[in-house]
Amino acid sequence: MDFLSDFLMRFGAQLQSPTLAFLIGGIVIAALGSKLEIPEAIYKFIVFMLLIKVGLSGGIAIRNANLVDMLLPALFAVVTGMLIVFIGRYTLAKLPKVKTVDAIATAGLFGAVSGSTLAAALTVMEAQGMEYEPWAAALYPFMDIPALVTAIVVASIYTTKKRAAAAEELSKQEYLNKQEYLSKQSVAAGKYPTSRQEYRSQQRITASGYPSKQRDRVKIWPIVKESLEGSALSALLLGLALGILTRPESVFESFYEPLFRGLLSILMLIMGMEAWSRLGELRKVAQWYAVYAFVAPLLHGFIAFGLGMIAHYVTGFTPGGVVILSVIAASSSDISGPPTLRAGIPSANPSAYIGASTAVGTPVAIALGIPLYIGLAQALMGG
Amino acid sequence: MDFLSDFLMRFGAQLQSPTLAFLIGGIVIAALGSKLEIPEAIYKFIVFMLLIKVGLSGGIAIRNANLVDMLLPALFAVVTGMLIVFIGRYTLAKLPKVKTVDAIATAGLFGAVSGSTLAAALTVMEAQGMEYEPWAAALYPFMDIPALVTAIVVASIYTTKKRAAAAEELSKQEYLNKQEYLSKQSVAAGKYPTSRQEYRSQQRITASGYPSKQRDRVKIWPIVKESLEGSALSALLLGLALGILTRPESVFESFYEPLFRGLLSILMLIMGMEAWSRLGELRKVAQWYAVYAFVAPLLHGFIAFGLGMIAHYVTGFTPGGVVILSVIAASSSDISGPPTLRAGIPSANPSAYIGASTAVGTPVAIALGIPLYIGLAQALMGG
Amino acid sequence: MDFLSDFLMRFGAQLQSPTLAFLIGGIVIAALGSKLEIPEAIYKFIVFMLLIKVGLSGGIAIRNANLVDMLLPALFAVVTGMLIVFIGRYTLAKLPKVKTVDAIATAGLFGAVSGSTLAAALTVMEAQGMEYEPWAAALYPFMDIPALVTAIVVASIYTTKKRAAAAEELSKQEYLNKQEYLSKQSVAAGKYPTSRQEYRSQQRITASGYPSKQRDRVKIWPIVKESLEGSALSALLLGLALGILTRPESVFESFYEPLFRGLLSILMLIMGMEAWSRLGELRKVAQWYAVYAFVAPLLHGFIAFGLGMIAHYVTGFTPGGVVILSVIAASSSDISGPPTLRAGIPSANPSAYIGASTAVGTPVAIALGIPLYIGLAQALMGG
Repeated sequence: MDFLSDFLMRFGAQLQSPTLAFLIGGIVIAALGSKLEIPEAIYKFIVFMLLIKVGLSGGIAIRNANLVDMLLPALFAVVTGMLIVFIGRYTLAKLPKVKTVDAIATAGLFGAVSGSTLAAALTVMEAQGMEYEPWAAALYPFMDIPALVTAIVVASIYTTKKRAAAAEELSKQEYLNKQEYLSKQSVAAGKYPTSRQEYRSQQRITASGYPSKQRDRVKIWPIVKESLEGSALSALLLGLALGILTRPESVFESFYEPLFRGLLSILMLIMGMEAWSRLGELRKVAQWYAVYAFVAPLLHGFIAFGLGMIAHYVTGFTPGGVVILSVIAASSSDISGPPTLRAGIPSANPSAYIGASTAVGTPVAIALGIPLYIGLAQALMGG
Repeated sequence: MDFLSDFLMRFGAQLQSPTLAFLIGGIVIAALGSKLEIPEAIYKFIVFMLLIKVGLSGGIAIRNANLVDMLLPALFAVVTGMLIVFIGRYTLAKLPKVKTVDAIATAGLFGAVSGSTLAAALTVMEAQGMEYEPWAAALYPFMDIPALVTAIVVASIYTTKKRAAAAEELSKQEYLNKQEYLSKQSVAAGKYPTSRQEYRSQQRITASGYPSKQRDRVKIWPIVKESLEGSALSALLLGLALGILTRPESVFESFYEPLFRGLLSILMLIMGMEAWSRLGELRKVAQWYAVYAFVAPLLHGFIAFGLGMIAHYVTGFTPGGVVILSVIAASSSDISGPPTLRAGIPSANPSAYIGASTAVGTPVAIALGIPLYIGLAQALMGG
Repeated sequence: MDFLSDFLMRFGAQLQSPTLAFLIGGIVIAALGSKLEIPEAIYKFIVFMLLIKVGLSGGIAIRNANLVDMLLPALFAVVTGMLIVFIGRYTLAKLPKVKTVDAIATAGLFGAVSGSTLAAALTVMEAQGMEYEPWAAALYPFMDIPALVTAIVVASIYTTKKRAAAAEELSKQEYLNKQEYLSKQSVAAGKYPTSRQEYRSQQRITASGYPSKQRDRVKIWPIVKESLEGSALSALLLGLALGILTRPESVFESFYEPLFRGLLSILMLIMGMEAWSRLGELRKVAQWYAVYAFVAPLLHGFIAFGLGMIAHYVTGFTPGGVVILSVIAASSSDISGPPTLRAGIPSANPSAYIGASTAVGTPVAIALGIPLYIGLAQALMGG
């Protein structure tokens, strides 16, 4: 059982990493009744800082990449990132008692990319003398950002449709009562306030009284537009654009990059404190998340491996590049994902997606996925 | 057209610098309807951090300078900084449709000093083997801070006089109606709240009912005092005093200095988002700002050159020192100025002063001013 | 008068250190009527950052220490830290017109440890070739944190008892009037809001109407629990636990540690501005604080010296270790103490405890304490 001991060792190390340590710390102090509080203005600012940094680093990577050579692999990365969200939407989300928004957020996190899993793969490949394109690591933002954007948009469409459906079955008066009840419930559930965006989308429906326009069909484009204009994706895409089009390296390296991990630790603390009040929700569905978190990284890696092989035969993409694309797909983000999803899908339960990703998904991707894809590439393409 | 190509190249580089990139980024996302929001508490804190840093670095420079030797040049720097504001007050501000507060803020920014323009001049002078006093670069806070303080005080006097004049022509009831209208207007105009100082100065007038005391004449000293006590100048002057009188180097170097550029990029983003709603105001007067921004740096440099020559003949100030004094006068601040003016003259339109300075003033000062003053010094004083 | 000139030189250097410079700066600008304001959200965040850093560094030191060897000295450090608070509670607090909460906070600060005093002692000992256990410096959190926790709990017990006693003598109606009066007074006294914890403890009493349960006796344990759950001690103990149980070094070294001194300078500024309005309170009792601040460091050092000698004879604790334990006891914190006490005992006057510690206590500990304990150790144990 070499794999099991390797898996357990990595699992133990994850529990001591600052990311998970602060998350668990938050859960524990909330359980002990601590009155610790991070002001909301600080919370919003931390999310902004994290998201603009994720965008900037993706944008700078893209600007410095060889876009012509990497066209096909980059396209496949985008496709894989979006596909992963839809797979989660139609598997995990359909399981009994699993909340749909939690499942979409989890799929978004598994579509997003973990820099440390990628670094682990590069180390193993270099030790084995496996060659790959120097720009292959720059494929990560092409999967990371589309997956997160898709998850937020899909969650937003789901939430709006559900509200519209609920409204249709009720008379105007009943509808308003229900709205009031729902909004109270959402306030009670989440310690930290939901995003302005969600608030406004509630307002919009309420303000229009009996929502006659939504009777027939929910329009998709306004929801996509509203998601993109929301504070989470605005910051992410602004950072991406600034990274691609301008030269923000000086502030990136002196400010956004050094502060990132520290601010993330505070966000983890906040999410841990919030998670405590919602751990109960997961009791009856934890096994589904465990199954998904074990199967999904391997499945996502195989999908990317297949697409990578197409690029291998069409444009000569190296076997090493195919492995990197697969590892990017297999990895789940513990860095860019949580702040983005927390701000973009505020109604989803962070315990679900972070727990699934950090406790199971990442160890599986590193201990099982990396050797699997390297062996497969050597067997099939002689890399 | 060597100058033109040089000018255009510098102009292009400016657009990619983090300062301007974040400003433009803010304008673009506001134009696209983004709901991104930086909490007000964060905005206030960023302004505080920037201003105390500007003060601290000025104060430390002054403490380490040779005050006896530099007495006359420093005095001339103070005089030039204040004079620049009054020149703007009685030229740019008098042009048709130009708003007076915008013009005063612009003149303040052109009186303030750009560290990067100064660095460019020192590089050119060293390449040419032109000697200068080692303390000459430390002249900058003697022009920078007086210019900004003068601009804020002059704007405050103007605003108070205008309100008093408006009040005189109205009966008490009409006056109060008007106040209500004005305060609504100012809320609508600026997305971010005006400073407490402005708010209180409104309150003060309103609270006194029909402002009988202001009938005859506006008292200057209380306005100067209130400007100095406001949060913008308090932070700036506190930093200056701490820099001169104490040893804050350890926190300056480990905290205020490294965070400066990053926090400035966020301020620029905020100012960009705000600028979007006010760009329309500038459409009819943009040509005046362009003319001012082209002529003013050269004119300010000549004034300082003349004063520097007096110091040359009286105390033996080197020709190289005269060039530095002129470049300091010709430069317009893209660092210390914007946060100070944003907090000190909240009613002025940042698009006006930052646009004029960054897009025209700085390229003119670097590409035209520096060679001009060096040539002039060599011709007149054989430096 | 070698000691006096040494004392005065250290006193002068303290006044220029960033910690005290920003405190005095805050007092001066408040006295000059400045409207400078640090938003409350920022203030709360700064306190959180400082406390979690103090906890983390203590926890990391403990994790890396040799716990078995240091068991007895560590126990003595805990005992000394707690004892110092009770000594202050029954000496300084009983002096005429000295406010009890101010005295408890001052005793807490004198029980807490100054890293710079400790560093000064290590430097002197190394110059003299005096040996000590490599883990001896890691004794500091064992005294620092118990002293601060004890001070906050003792202050909380005192405050609650006083309120209960006041309530007993009043009829229900009179009681409520008084409460209203008191809460108005506390708002007027402190510019910055009192902690949520204190607010809630007021609420709890008010909500229960006439506080019949408190008639007989104040229960201690709920107050201890409430103190530990408050935001100040939560952050401190969370940091301690994370430092001991997990591996937060990467974020500690890249984030919490580098930002510490800068954030502390801002907290000092806030405390200075607040101190201005309360300096008057100290006029009649300043001599008592001066006497306490002169005698206490030496007395605390002697107590620790005695306990250290027991460890010397029982477990072979080196004479150098005994000196370090004594210096830790003699020192008073200018770093970990102020933010903890400000958040944990919001009603205490910072001018009292910081003034006593920085202006008198620290120079006494360094200039008088260190040579005293070294000489004593060499005389008694031949170290």
